[in-house]
Amino acid sequence: MKLHGYFRSSASYRVRIALNLKGLDADHLSHHLRKGEQRDPAFLAINPQGLVPALQDDAGEILTQSLAIIEWLEETHPAPALLPRDPLRRAHVRAFAQAIACDIHPVQNLKVLGRLRELGQPDEQVTAWAAWANREGLAACQALIAKEPGPFCFGAAPTMADLCLVPQLFNARRFGVDVSAYPRLLQAEAAAQAIKAFADAAPDRQPDAE
Amino acid sequence: MKLHGYFRSSASYRVRIALNLKGLDADHLSHHLRKGEQRDPAFLAINPQGLVPALQDDAGEILTQSLAIIEWLEETHPAPALLPRDPLRRAHVRAFAQAIACDIHPVQNLKVLGRLRELGQPDEQVTAWAAWANREGLAACQALIAKEPGPFCFGAAPTMADLCLVPQLFNARRFGVDVSAYPRLLQAEAAAQAIKAFADAAPDRQPDAE
Repeated sequence: MKLHGYFRSSASYRVRIALNLKGLDADHLSHHLRKGEQRDPAFLAINPQGLVPALQDDAGEILTQSLAIIEWLEETHPAPALLPRDPLRRAHVRAFAQAIACDIHPVQNLKVLGRLRELGQPDEQVTAWAAWANREGLAACQALIAKEPGPFCFGAAPTMADLCLVPQLFNARRFGVDVSAYPRLLQAEAAAQAIKAFADAAPDRQPDAE
Repeated sequence: MKLHGYFRSSASYRVRIALNLKGLDADHLSHHLRKGEQRDPAFLAINPQGLVPALQDDAGEILTQSLAIIEWLEETHPAPALLPRDPLRRAHVRAFAQAIACDIHPVQNLKVLGRLRELGQPDEQVTAWAAWANREGLAACQALIAKEPGPFCFGAAPTMADLCLVPQLFNARRFGVDVSAYPRLLQAEAAAQAIKAFADAAPDRQPDAE
């Protein structure tokens, strides 16, 4: 398999963790987002959205959108499970993942922040915007799992929720968010980071890290 | 079941279509987003994110995030199927749905547009922002299904992709987007709107419509 990604892309980071947890190898192809390589015609032919990650399976089929890729990995390589078996529990894990993947990440991604600059917002306001999106979203995420046993987001093993949380906390810190306000999330992050599959997926461990 | 929603919320609209297609009844409880009712403490106790939709099942359990709710409906009420059986096809349908639910909708929702106003952006720029998010996203969505047979997004029957597309086109028109640029998407929309489950879920058919 080939994973088209970027070391600092938090959506790519989610998929790297999933591949590592499932014990799957992939060639990592880097597309430099700040240089706009995701808009190269060659890459747009792979993903018309011009976003990473994109995964090419062994037959050359292309998958896009990190959560859709992770669901596909879960369906084709079920062990270890990244979703519980019970439908209601699955719904809760997916909702947490989507609270990050829909309601935090896209609001603070490179494209949106670039658009804010085009509207004349100074760098200080752009960073404040990104921090706001992370703060509001992470506070809600913490509330979503207030009654869940730890140490992970949903109990004793990592799920799709933790795959989204760890990269988002990485983003939040980049934007200067004081993450000490989210002790329950930090508990889950610490449990995750103790696992090699998570640690090996970190941005600074990738070959394209700057 | 109870569906906490709002007539014009496109995420609520997705779930209304799913319930109708599955033949499931739900009491519809409206939370007036423009009046900020989604931030009432009583509603935050239901969904700490302060977002609609939220679905309460017959046991009182609460589900949030429209795509997580739709996946739960699919797992607990499989017919008619809203996802194909083949994992790769499922991944493509989910990716299209997420291209809307992650990359278009949250960038043009009420909260983000309100934040733009707080930053001093005039109404004209705020509407232009929402139109931009829709135009860019819908163009990518059309490219994602360029090779898919119609009339629906993915073949002969509606899927989770159409459940996301129809409400997003409703939004795009509200923001003045010229949707004639997306004939393949309009083909899928027309096929969907001919189905009663879609037509009955339209915002102007809801009791809280203004």
